[in-house]
Parts: sequence; C-alpha cells; structure tokens
Amino acid sequence: MRFHTRKWVKPEDLNPNSTLFGGRLLAWIDEELALYSIIQLENPKIVTKHMSEINFRSSAKQGDIVEIGIDVVKFGKSSLTLTCQVRNMMTREIIITIDSITMVSLGTDGKPKPHGKTQIEYVQDRLTDY
Amino acid sequence: MRFHTRKWVKPEDLNPNSTLFGGRLLAWIDEELALYSIIQLENPKIVTKHMSEINFRSSAKQGDIVEIGIDVVKFGKSSLTLTCQVRNMMTREIIITIDSITMVSLGTDGKPKPHGKTQIEYVQDRLTDY
Amino acid sequence: MRFHTRKWVKPEDLNPNSTLFGGRLLAWIDEELALYSIIQLENPKIVTKHMSEINFRSSAKQGDIVEIGIDVVKFGKSSLTLTCQVRNMMTREIIITIDSITMVSLGTDGKPKPHGKTQIEYVQDRLTDY
Amino acid sequence: MRFHTRKWVKPEDLNPNSTLFGGRLLAWIDEELALYSIIQLENPKIVTKHMSEINFRSSAKQGDIVEIGIDVVKFGKSSLTLTCQVRNMMTREIIITIDSITMVSLGTDGKPKPHGKTQIEYVQDRLTDY
Amino acid sequence: MRFHTRKWVKPEDLNPNSTLFGGRLLAWIDEELALYSIIQLENPKIVTKHMSEINFRSSAKQGDIVEIGIDVVKFGKSSLTLTCQVRNMMTREIIITIDSITMVSLGTDGKPKPHGKTQIEYVQDRLTDY
Amino acid sequence: MRFHTRKWVKPEDLNPNSTLFGGRLLAWIDEELALYSIIQLENPKIVTKHMSEINFRSSAKQGDIVEIGIDVVKFGKSSLTLTCQVRNMMTREIIITIDSITMVSLGTDGKPKPHGKTQIEYVQDRLTDY
Repeated sequence: MRFHTRKWVKPEDLNPNSTLFGGRLLAWIDEELALYSIIQLENPKIVTKHMSEINFRSSAKQGDIVEIGIDVVKFGKSSLTLTCQVRNMMTREIIITIDSITMVSLGTDGKPKPHGKTQIEYVQDRLTDY
Repeated sequence: MRFHTRKWVKPEDLNPNSTLFGGRLLAWIDEELALYSIIQLENPKIVTKHMSEINFRSSAKQGDIVEIGIDVVKFGKSSLTLTCQVRNMMTREIIITIDSITMVSLGTDGKPKPHGKTQIEYVQDRLTDY
Repeated sequence: MRFHTRKWVKPEDLNPNSTLFGGRLLAWIDEELALYSIIQLENPKIVTKHMSEINFRSSAKQGDIVEIGIDVVKFGKSSLTLTCQVRNMMTREIIITIDSITMVSLGTDGKPKPHGKTQIEYVQDRLTDY
Repeated sequence: MRFHTRKWVKPEDLNPNSTLFGGRLLAWIDEELALYSIIQLENPKIVTKHMSEINFRSSAKQGDIVEIGIDVVKFGKSSLTLTCQVRNMMTREIIITIDSITMVSLGTDGKPKPHGKTQIEYVQDRLTDY
Repeated sequence: MRFHTRKWVKPEDLNPNSTLFGGRLLAWIDEELALYSIIQLENPKIVTKHMSEINFRSSAKQGDIVEIGIDVVKFGKSSLTLTCQVRNMMTREIIITIDSITMVSLGTDGKPKPHGKTQIEYVQDRLTDY
Repeated sequence: MRFHTRKWVKPEDLNPNSTLFGGRLLAWIDEELALYSIIQLENPKIVTKHMSEINFRSSAKQGDIVEIGIDVVKFGKSSLTLTCQVRNMMTREIIITIDSITMVSLGTDGKPKPHGKTQIEYVQDRLTDY
C-alpha cells in the first residue's frame, strides 16, 4: 500500500472532545480516494458509489500527523475498487480501515463509462513516453 | 425516522464536478450522529466506533437542501446503534443510507462507560419533570 | 415553533475567548432562515431583506449543542416574515432571539416575485399528493 | 466613519444563488465589531450584547471587494455602542447598515466590567507615549 | 504604509502548537495583496507573480489582532510591485515582512495587460470626480 | 524529491477569477513543510523561520490535482533547510518553486533546540528497529 497525502491535525480538525473529528477524517479519505481514482483512470469525473464497513480503531489528537494509504483491489469495466488505511504517524497506530470502496468513472452524460484500465500505472511511467 | 438537521448545498460544499462533495456529506452525517447520541445518552463523550456499508444512491447539486434522518436500532450497555438516511428535499431522492452505526459512550478515562439508557427520550419529555 | 437544525459547537466555532463566536451563530441562523423559506415558498431564489433587533441572551461553549427554531409570522405577497430562536440544548438557555426577519422571494430577473403561499405547508403533506 | 477591513468575495463566500452569503457577511461584521472594541477598550474579553435592526440594501457578487466601516456612537460604563456600514468597493453601493450595536466589556468573572474609556483613541497616539 | 485589514486570531487559525498557523497568515496576506492591486489597477484580474524572501520575525497567539499593511514600491507597465508588513496589534511586534511582491494585471486572454497607472489613487479621490 | 501530499482543487480553493487561490496554495505548502520537518526532526514544535523568494510559474483550475514535493537542503544545528516544488498532476506544469525554507526546532521554552539529526530518515527504517 502506498501512502501519499499527510495531514496535520490542527485545532480546526478537532471535535469538542479534542480528538480528531471523525467527519473531518472521512472527508480527507473521500478526497484522497477521488484523486487517486482520477489519476489511475485518467478521467476527472469519478464518484464514490459504495464503501464497505468502516472500523474506527483509534483516534488522533492535536499535533498528530496522519497519512492515508490506498491500494487497488480490482479494476472493473467502469469501476475501480480500492482499499484504504489511515495511520497515525506519531503513535504508529492504525486509525481507520475500509476494505473496499467502489469508485465509478462517469461520462459527460453522467452515466458509467468504461475506463479501459486493467492495472496500476505510475504517473512517472506515463511520462517516460514523452 | 425523525429528520432534524438540514443543510443548504453551497459552493464550498461541492467537489470539482460541481456536485455535493461526498466527504462533506460524511462529515455532516458524523456530526449529526454524534450530537444525536450525546442527547440520547446524556454524555458528551461519544465516539463513532463502526459504520456498516455506505451506499451513495444519488447526489445533490448547488442550491439543494438535504436533511439528515436518524433512528435508534438498539441500546447496548455502553453503546448505541443508530441507522441513518439522508434525503434531498428538492428532488425527494435518497442520497445515502447507512443501516447501522455504532456509537460508544466513554468515561473520563476514555474507556467505554455504561449509559443506563434503554429507550429513546425526547428532550421535551425530560423537561416536563421540571 | 419547530426546531430542526442542530449544531455541535466545535473548536472551529469558537471566538478567542473560547465561547461560541457570534458571527458563526449568525451565519448558522441565516442559512436556516434561507432554507426554511425556500421550502415554504418553493422558490430557491430567496434573499434576507431585514432583521429586527437581535438580543444575545447567553452564549454556548465547546461541546454544547444548539438548535435553531423558526416560525412564520406572516405571509406577504412576495415576502415571508419569520421569527427565530436559538436554544442551547445542554444548558436549556435561550441564546438568541430575533422577533422578525423578512425574506423576499425573487424572480429570475432579481426582482420580488409573488409566491402565492398563504400558510405553512409540510413537505410530507405535499408528498401525499403523489 | 473609518473603514478598515476589506474582504474579497471568493467562491467559498457565496450562497447557492451565487451572491454573497448573508451569513458570511454577518460573521465578517461580528469579527470586525469585536476587534474594534477590543482595541478601543483595551480588553480582549468583549461580547456582542445587542444589534439594532439590520437592513440588507444590496448584495455583492464573486470578485467584489467589500469594506467594513465602524464608528462609535457612545461610550457607556462597561459598554461601547457602535454603528456599522458595509460598502461594496466595486459598485459603490451600501450593502448593509446597522445603526447601533452594543458591545460589553467583561471581567475575568464573566460579568460586565467598567472600561474607563470615554473617547476614541488611535493606536498610533497611544504609541507616542513611548 | 497604510494598514487596512485586521484579523482576529481564532482557534481555527492556530497550528497544533497553538500559535498562528503560518499558512493561514500567508493566505491572509495574499488576499490583501490581491484586493489592494485590484483597487489600484482597476482590474479584477490580477495574479501574484513573485514574492521576495519572507522573514517570520514573531508569531501571534489566540486572541491577538493582526493588521496587514501594504505600500507601493513601483508601478510597472502591466505589473505593480508592493511591499508588505504584518503587525501584531497586541504586542506591537512585527510578525512578517515581505520587501517586494510583484502582482501582474491580466487581460481576458490571460496575458499581461498594461494598466496605465503610475501612482497611488484613493478611492475617495476617484469619487470626487463624480 | 519525494512528493507526498496531493490536493484536489475544489470550488472552496479558488480565487474570484476561478483559478487556484495563491493563499490557499501557500497554506498547503506551509502545512506540508511543517509536518515534513516534524517527522524528520522528531519534534512536534517546529516553526517556519524564513522562505527564499517564491516564483508563481503557473496556476491550477478547478478539478486539477496538485502534489507537493519537498527535499532536504541542509541539516543545521537546530534548523532544517528544505526546498519545495508544487506540480500540477493534470497539466504536468510546475506551479511554484521555493529554493530554500528554514524551519527551526524549538524547545518547550520556545527557544531553538538542537535536534541532533544529520540525514534524512524514513519512518519505515525507524520502524525496523522494533
């Protein structure tokens, strides 16, 4: 699993009990899922269709740094199934895991659109074609 | 199911495809789950422990109004299991459903703490004691 | 008066004295007034035209839950006059009252547009027509 | 009337009808009132107690610049009465006027505390004492 | 140097060490530079092109009030060179200085566009022409 | 240079000309610099002390994905000098470069504190000690 985006837990990210607000964390994850899919499928129009159950294993506090890891489970015809894990870089604990998230590639008509991808590509590799 | 909180979909709530950003929606839901639990369990220290799978059935666009409905599934010893539905008041479509969310009541030591509740109470009814 | 939207006072909602920032509260109220009017008048283009004096009776602190109540005072030709009260669900104190707020329904030309409504309708009742 | 703070109307400040969200404007004003009072009364603990009626005369759109003007109406014993006007620097229209806003100076006990001020002071003049 | 916009340091503006988040400060400055240029050059399409080195001399804490001062260094053909200083109104310390910032006026084609200005104008003076 | 954090340019990140707001970009960079330093120096108390000149080479528009790359220039006694580049993953253009940023490690007294580090460490390598 590759971990890209990192977030610094600031006062604006806390719930009233002074731990990381779960809603903020879900928003961070959803953004990361979207942009990961956009890059893989080379289509900016992607929607989250389904998430499997979410376990909140631990939390984070002000000043902690969390990083979000994503991996591909399966390339469908117009979908992409991902798995996600969020870790606390300070305590080294896992904060959240979501086994399976289905993202769908849409056409300009808002309907599912085949993406033609079958494996993970790295932007760097694409660039070597130039 | 009782629907309380309503949100107006503003430009700041959109994803780059100009529909409601899923992460924002999840953050709204998580806040509503937390405050519903706090009121029912009369304990401000509540955490989200688990969410069952999430289906994104439809979306919302700028200017739509969404409302968040919550109902109780089960009162546990230190937990509360809720169910949630988000509707679009403009299109009357269901946006999201989450069958089961487990909230846990914590003590000051951060450990689960029995809440002693077994049924839904309305703040109004509590007030009649005064 | 019916109370719908509830807000959880999070660190991002506080002023530097660690009480609920009045400006945040006014923003919450203005959103609630707008969406209440949009639903009643079945017109998404509504503007706030006038607010009567505002009394800040008490405040709220981190972790408090506030709920916003709105009632109709009068249906005008192209306007809707509302009254608003915000309560702290934790302390049961009234936070703010605004006796009269005038919302105006606009047409696509940005000019006041008669809305044809004379009484409160509930979305549920409208739905029974289907 | 002296105009200090200026705001640039960005997409995040708009309501769904793509004009400046009134709630955002009220939040900007409330912040400006607070900091103006803090500087005049040399006490960081100030609360908004009362606002006279608010007229929304015109709005602003994306890219407009608004500036907030404040003047003193009266120095009370522990209060300060201000007047406020917001202008659109692009269209030169007045957006909002609030004739009278009462700010109260509080002590560490949260009770009104006399501030001993009777006239407007400029920070520059205070500095000349050094 | 004229100081206009003032900001109240709220919890949402802090980094996890509870001092003013530098990124927030840079965002405030960039907005002020943009709107100052828009007003001077009478063109809403302005971009930041270059900033000279930035010295963070001191910080600010919750409740402090900071004010942002801007002055013109030079009018170019399609550019405007500014200088900027941010002060803490509570401690009277300088927080940040940026000696030179180059703003560029763009045409509707996104290319630099001569602005025809050679000296600072005050909005008030422009108004006297009417 | 290693690129970690990625951001999706949403409506809330735009300036009124509908390109990425420079201030938002600077805030993203400052957060990334802080958390990179915290991880390298294993000290949560880090401040930005100095940035060399900043060139804004290109911008980004709604829906673009930007990634932030950081590399170490030099380990000082209590400082860390970094270099930073932000790229647009859609257009493959460089958005911004900052050759040199000085971050300083502070002790609990707020004074510079030697960090004892002389080379880049990867969190993974640290973990192998366990």
